[in-house]
Amino acid sequence: MSESKGRVLLAYSGGLDTSCILAWLIEQGYEVYAFMADVGQEEDFEAARKKALAVGAKKFFLEDFKREFVTELIYPAVQANCIYEGVYLLGTSLARPVIARGMMAVADREGCDFVSHGCTGKGNDQVRFELAFYGLKPDIKVIAPWRIPEFYNRFAGRQALLQFAAEKSIPVTQTQAKPWSTDENLFHISYEAGILEDPNTTPPADMWKLTVAPEDAPTTPERISIEFERGLPVKVTVPAEGKDYTDPVDVFLKLNALARKHGIGRIDIVENRFIGVKSRGCYESPAATILRVAHMDIEGLTLDRNVRALRDQFLTFELSKILYNGHWFTPEREFIVSAIPASQRTVNGIVRLKLYKGNVVVEGRASDEGLYDEKQSSMDELGGFEPTDTTGFISIESIRIKKWAQANIRKGQAGIEPKDVYGTRV
Amino acid sequence: MSESKGRVLLAYSGGLDTSCILAWLIEQGYEVYAFMADVGQEEDFEAARKKALAVGAKKFFLEDFKREFVTELIYPAVQANCIYEGVYLLGTSLARPVIARGMMAVADREGCDFVSHGCTGKGNDQVRFELAFYGLKPDIKVIAPWRIPEFYNRFAGRQALLQFAAEKSIPVTQTQAKPWSTDENLFHISYEAGILEDPNTTPPADMWKLTVAPEDAPTTPERISIEFERGLPVKVTVPAEGKDYTDPVDVFLKLNALARKHGIGRIDIVENRFIGVKSRGCYESPAATILRVAHMDIEGLTLDRNVRALRDQFLTFELSKILYNGHWFTPEREFIVSAIPASQRTVNGIVRLKLYKGNVVVEGRASDEGLYDEKQSSMDELGGFEPTDTTGFISIESIRIKKWAQANIRKGQAGIEPKDVYGTRV
Amino acid sequence: MSESKGRVLLAYSGGLDTSCILAWLIEQGYEVYAFMADVGQEEDFEAARKKALAVGAKKFFLEDFKREFVTELIYPAVQANCIYEGVYLLGTSLARPVIARGMMAVADREGCDFVSHGCTGKGNDQVRFELAFYGLKPDIKVIAPWRIPEFYNRFAGRQALLQFAAEKSIPVTQTQAKPWSTDENLFHISYEAGILEDPNTTPPADMWKLTVAPEDAPTTPERISIEFERGLPVKVTVPAEGKDYTDPVDVFLKLNALARKHGIGRIDIVENRFIGVKSRGCYESPAATILRVAHMDIEGLTLDRNVRALRDQFLTFELSKILYNGHWFTPEREFIVSAIPASQRTVNGIVRLKLYKGNVVVEGRASDEGLYDEKQSSMDELGGFEPTDTTGFISIESIRIKKWAQANIRKGQAGIEPKDVYGTRV
Amino acid sequence: MSESKGRVLLAYSGGLDTSCILAWLIEQGYEVYAFMADVGQEEDFEAARKKALAVGAKKFFLEDFKREFVTELIYPAVQANCIYEGVYLLGTSLARPVIARGMMAVADREGCDFVSHGCTGKGNDQVRFELAFYGLKPDIKVIAPWRIPEFYNRFAGRQALLQFAAEKSIPVTQTQAKPWSTDENLFHISYEAGILEDPNTTPPADMWKLTVAPEDAPTTPERISIEFERGLPVKVTVPAEGKDYTDPVDVFLKLNALARKHGIGRIDIVENRFIGVKSRGCYESPAATILRVAHMDIEGLTLDRNVRALRDQFLTFELSKILYNGHWFTPEREFIVSAIPASQRTVNGIVRLKLYKGNVVVEGRASDEGLYDEKQSSMDELGGFEPTDTTGFISIESIRIKKWAQANIRKGQAGIEPKDVYGTRV
Repeated sequence: MSESKGRVLLAYSGGLDTSCILAWLIEQGYEVYAFMADVGQEEDFEAARKKALAVGAKKFFLEDFKREFVTELIYPAVQANCIYEGVYLLGTSLARPVIARGMMAVADREGCDFVSHGCTGKGNDQVRFELAFYGLKPDIKVIAPWRIPEFYNRFAGRQALLQFAAEKSIPVTQTQAKPWSTDENLFHISYEAGILEDPNTTPPADMWKLTVAPEDAPTTPERISIEFERGLPVKVTVPAEGKDYTDPVDVFLKLNALARKHGIGRIDIVENRFIGVKSRGCYESPAATILRVAHMDIEGLTLDRNVRALRDQFLTFELSKILYNGHWFTPEREFIVSAIPASQRTVNGIVRLKLYKGNVVVEGRASDEGLYDEKQSSMDELGGFEPTDTTGFISIESIRIKKWAQANIRKGQAGIEPKDVYGTRV
Repeated sequence: MSESKGRVLLAYSGGLDTSCILAWLIEQGYEVYAFMADVGQEEDFEAARKKALAVGAKKFFLEDFKREFVTELIYPAVQANCIYEGVYLLGTSLARPVIARGMMAVADREGCDFVSHGCTGKGNDQVRFELAFYGLKPDIKVIAPWRIPEFYNRFAGRQALLQFAAEKSIPVTQTQAKPWSTDENLFHISYEAGILEDPNTTPPADMWKLTVAPEDAPTTPERISIEFERGLPVKVTVPAEGKDYTDPVDVFLKLNALARKHGIGRIDIVENRFIGVKSRGCYESPAATILRVAHMDIEGLTLDRNVRALRDQFLTFELSKILYNGHWFTPEREFIVSAIPASQRTVNGIVRLKLYKGNVVVEGRASDEGLYDEKQSSMDELGGFEPTDTTGFISIESIRIKKWAQANIRKGQAGIEPKDVYGTRV
Repeated sequence: MSESKGRVLLAYSGGLDTSCILAWLIEQGYEVYAFMADVGQEEDFEAARKKALAVGAKKFFLEDFKREFVTELIYPAVQANCIYEGVYLLGTSLARPVIARGMMAVADREGCDFVSHGCTGKGNDQVRFELAFYGLKPDIKVIAPWRIPEFYNRFAGRQALLQFAAEKSIPVTQTQAKPWSTDENLFHISYEAGILEDPNTTPPADMWKLTVAPEDAPTTPERISIEFERGLPVKVTVPAEGKDYTDPVDVFLKLNALARKHGIGRIDIVENRFIGVKSRGCYESPAATILRVAHMDIEGLTLDRNVRALRDQFLTFELSKILYNGHWFTPEREFIVSAIPASQRTVNGIVRLKLYKGNVVVEGRASDEGLYDEKQSSMDELGGFEPTDTTGFISIESIRIKKWAQANIRKGQAGIEPKDVYGTRV
Repeated sequence: MSESKGRVLLAYSGGLDTSCILAWLIEQGYEVYAFMADVGQEEDFEAARKKALAVGAKKFFLEDFKREFVTELIYPAVQANCIYEGVYLLGTSLARPVIARGMMAVADREGCDFVSHGCTGKGNDQVRFELAFYGLKPDIKVIAPWRIPEFYNRFAGRQALLQFAAEKSIPVTQTQAKPWSTDENLFHISYEAGILEDPNTTPPADMWKLTVAPEDAPTTPERISIEFERGLPVKVTVPAEGKDYTDPVDVFLKLNALARKHGIGRIDIVENRFIGVKSRGCYESPAATILRVAHMDIEGLTLDRNVRALRDQFLTFELSKILYNGHWFTPEREFIVSAIPASQRTVNGIVRLKLYKGNVVVEGRASDEGLYDEKQSSMDELGGFEPTDTTGFISIESIRIKKWAQANIRKGQAGIEPKDVYGTRV
């Protein structure tokens, strides 16, 4: 037998694709270690372990990243209100850094010169994984079979994979493939490809896995409250249970359970992948949807206006893009994330929510932070406010506007006449 | 009788405040013309006309701005996805420019040197109105009684106003004031002040006027579709009615009716006023809520990624701030708005929606624009895509990241070890 | 004698204005303490002390802020490349926070309920001082005589001040006032007002105080080098002296001396004041001009591209505005400044400069940081670079551009035909 | 003889590289048409034509793009103050779109399915050219020999090229190659590679071609003035010549001549290429350096503050990046550029300049636009300004700052104590 080409750490899922990749890598002369990350997906890890070893993996690693996924990735994203293209809450993106970091740690420890994965050549995940690898271990070598012609030409189509699996005695448990692909973790599940590639196809009712349909959710609303400290959710109170949840992971999982029950968190979007291809994705992000509403609301009460504006325009926008494009282990992420704590120092308080058939309704919020001042805000009393000050304020604010208006009038370009902007479309 | 101090055009609402201001201005020696704008609010304009003239207005002007409100203000805001602090859809802000412009046109035509209004000294509307006045007619003089000590000290509290009304024979129809104030137009209604000043008070169920509660909305979903041309909603199709709506105002009003029926568009927020005071507001923005979902969705299918990102970060953000702060008639609005058409040239297509108990769910979208390419996007076929290209792409993208990682490693600052960001709150 | 109205801490300059304000405050019934800050301006502090006490100040405080001015304000601004409207290096703005903080510390310690200053009612400094006061000690009361009608009407014009000075036996040393005003500190001197108010007037040659004219500077260039650590200038090497400077203040003062000698750092600008008035200012910022060139250059060698871009667009821009508008003691400054350290972690290296008749010319730079890689950059060797990767990169980068171009062609809107953009002005 | 593989339009320079590429393409079986663009570089076009045809080109096209280069690319960049990484004025980037557009027009007309160029695989120009090709003619096929292994491996090193040239009878006029490469057009010349790859090497004095050294420039300053209309330079007045220049190209060329004579426009920078590699470049951009100073200055007098700020932060920044990265024929350029005219409507006026030994000194500026108001700005008279208004302005501006300060004090986090930011580096 010829000498090994080297040791490969393979991101293994237990499915057909990565099992075939495992066998193919061995066929190519590599020694393969299989790696699985538990980021909260529903999975039979023990079965996967057995399968990997049966197919020929020399070692199998299963690592539980649920806690660091929540505390190191998800909660900073909550603090920053991260969202991509106004809709997508970044569930897949957020899991990639913890998985990649875990893989690099094992690769380091176990002396693997190569890593491999089963990501396709058109998607975001290949980029997210590989940039994360390089940002941690710049000398790692990546084998991406779905971008290697000799692999993707040989295995064009599911039938070729099934035949190879049969040759290699890879057990194929899946009787019938779903007409879409999914990626799941404790934050969300994604659906894409297959029948979803027509953006005008309504997702079938039985696709959605995590949440009930709003139509099937309870007809009675449920009230909960979430307490934030420095922008982090530190307590969820569920009156119906007479219980509080304070552990970071428990908080998230409880919100997941509540949102799933009340039909909260379904998303359907045509988004722009990092490589510039438009793509249709459906997602269920139950807890994240509640947390987004609640966190943005408590910021209304506790965050200074100018900080909020700067944070929204720069930090939220850029960090969301960084996450989506897989730029977590980069200098720009280091830079952007360094500003989160200062933005959240005052974000302390409690939000009361009503959950009902897909709706997350804020019913009230409270804080000791003191940036909101009922008397000052009041329309019924002066509360220390001098209305004449506003006259000065408006007067100063209008200085440059008046100059502009005077110039317009002098040049006959004043703006009093109506103009039908709608007509511009003709 | 002494000579008049000059002619004042008063923004008149027909209510107690502006009726008293009308009488007070006359008492101060001004000749007063009353002005009302029909921006779609529910109002007995004829009663208001009679009242104004009865109180002593020399002339009364009622102008219908509904169409220009929709076509010149609302639809550009829809094209730009305008929103303030992530939640507020700017309904009051959007109406101010058309009203202010109408007033300046009348002031010009009728030779009024002064304008007056009943806005309080703590709110946004005084700023929005006055900056708009100055941006159109920089020599206009503004009388803002609620910022004049001799007025606001005299009329501190509703009782003083009622007494003055009695003295001046101003009919007071309102039997019982609501414990909040409202501002209504065809876009929305706002609720603030009174009991809402405690941000932890849940708005009473009978406050909401325009929409039914999601709990009371129909149990059967309703499907509609909206067609966009250059980002403008040009057709609403309502299968249940077997009807299409294509007139700009009809489109908006029909969406209002549909959203009201399905409990769509309620907002509750603590927002930051232009003057720097935090304030709690509740809003109902029915049609606008549907249009926002639909327009953002069709942009997913039809707008280039980079245009979308730049538009979101700059145009959307800045135009929303401009609107909120009453900077419509300013050079920065002229600048920002000039970029809308180029951002919407390709935004053509149809969105299919499901309306159900507060939810606006996208069920599909289609466009002939061609930026989405099912084959190219597909995970099942190459569609002209060379997977090896992505290898080059990732390789180039990783150049600077690897350099950074190498430097980190050299300096012992590599990022493989886990770090509990959540712990930073302690 | 009536009871005192309270104790005022007056920002005292020793000049005619603040001496008259001192006397006037006493006349108004206040007890006045005089405060002077040494921020490096050329001043006879002892004479000022005597004068203040002679006019009637109960106490006199002189505090030396030169070091904290350099280390807490100037160097962070250097790290962030702060500049206002592309030209102004913010010398006056940078001094205000240290002075204001010093005053609030004394006001606290000495039990002053009031502070006062001699800033005019149209300028930036009143705003910068007062917002800084309120950001530190929100209950402080400010007396700004130049905004109090009874003061500014009484003292309209220099003659009235001179007469009052004579009445109050205030010694007036200045024989002939210059036809402009100045503000000086170790960072810069500003010139404004008077003959400079015509923006088309060339500043007279004898106005410039700190720097020689480039025409009069040495005809022989001088070489120096500056070493940066984390973006801070930690060493200046002056070969002509055979000396290094490493103390933070010494570094700055040595660069000042070198720049003054070589005619470096003159600025002439029409800028936009915070209150919206355009204003013409001339400045000499010698050391700051050299540091700006050097710091930006070393960042080219040592700072990641994406960090630089984000920092330029957001941090540099916003911090410059914050400084100019006097928003140092605000939540937005706390937020923005928190991101500086992460942006400067890799900014380590040495820049070699030539100083010659107004020019600061970079002649070379070096760093051990390793983000620049001569081999990788080289056009003469591959240096580990695979040119084929770029083909993949361009291919991926062009995906969305091709889609856009195809749509343009389909719609007959392709861009091949020339278009004279210059013609748009007609 | 075998059939042709197709017709290639080659971007031909007349130099060794593209002559060898020409011969190699013929060797590979292509029919080659040679294309040269006159963008103002110093070149013997007739000699190049003869050479191209001698080497085997079937046709030769020379197109003069000087005017459209100036009016369609350079002047919009002047209007937008474009600059990359604070230093580079984008001279090479600006020429690429006109050349690429010219090539696509010829390719269309002459039925060329392929284009080819001599750009290296590590630089920006390959990307700029090819993305421009694809943005205009998405079905064009590009042959980039320096990215094709069989080419770059065969011609590794200048010696191999010289030998191939000898084989193919390609005349090699260059006796001694300079130890750097250059790219020249009427805007600038660039120097890179070779000895410049060490960023600490000072460029040799004889490298600089367009400008005299400041040391060798005239000892007498020269005064000129530039008039702008809508941000475009429409007249240059040169008193020393008693002449005005008004033609767009003449204006630019005259400023070039003046700047070259006075040693203006040298740049030395380590910049970040689009592909993520840091690279050292030296440039001479004579006219552009003068225009940048003048245009920014006239904007100070004539452009509204808020427009300027938004334009600086977004338009200037993004358009500079778009130009640098070769994204001219893209939707984002279409979007961004659409906002230029509204930003320049008021930019009308004259700037007076002194040119002296590398310095461009503004000596005054004037405009009829009226946004600057000498009386309003004046420190010596009120000019219609009410100083009490500023009290109101500051009071309103301080509302949220006081709230923040009160909260800080309540939490013991007030900011009065000094903090040595400089110390953070330790």
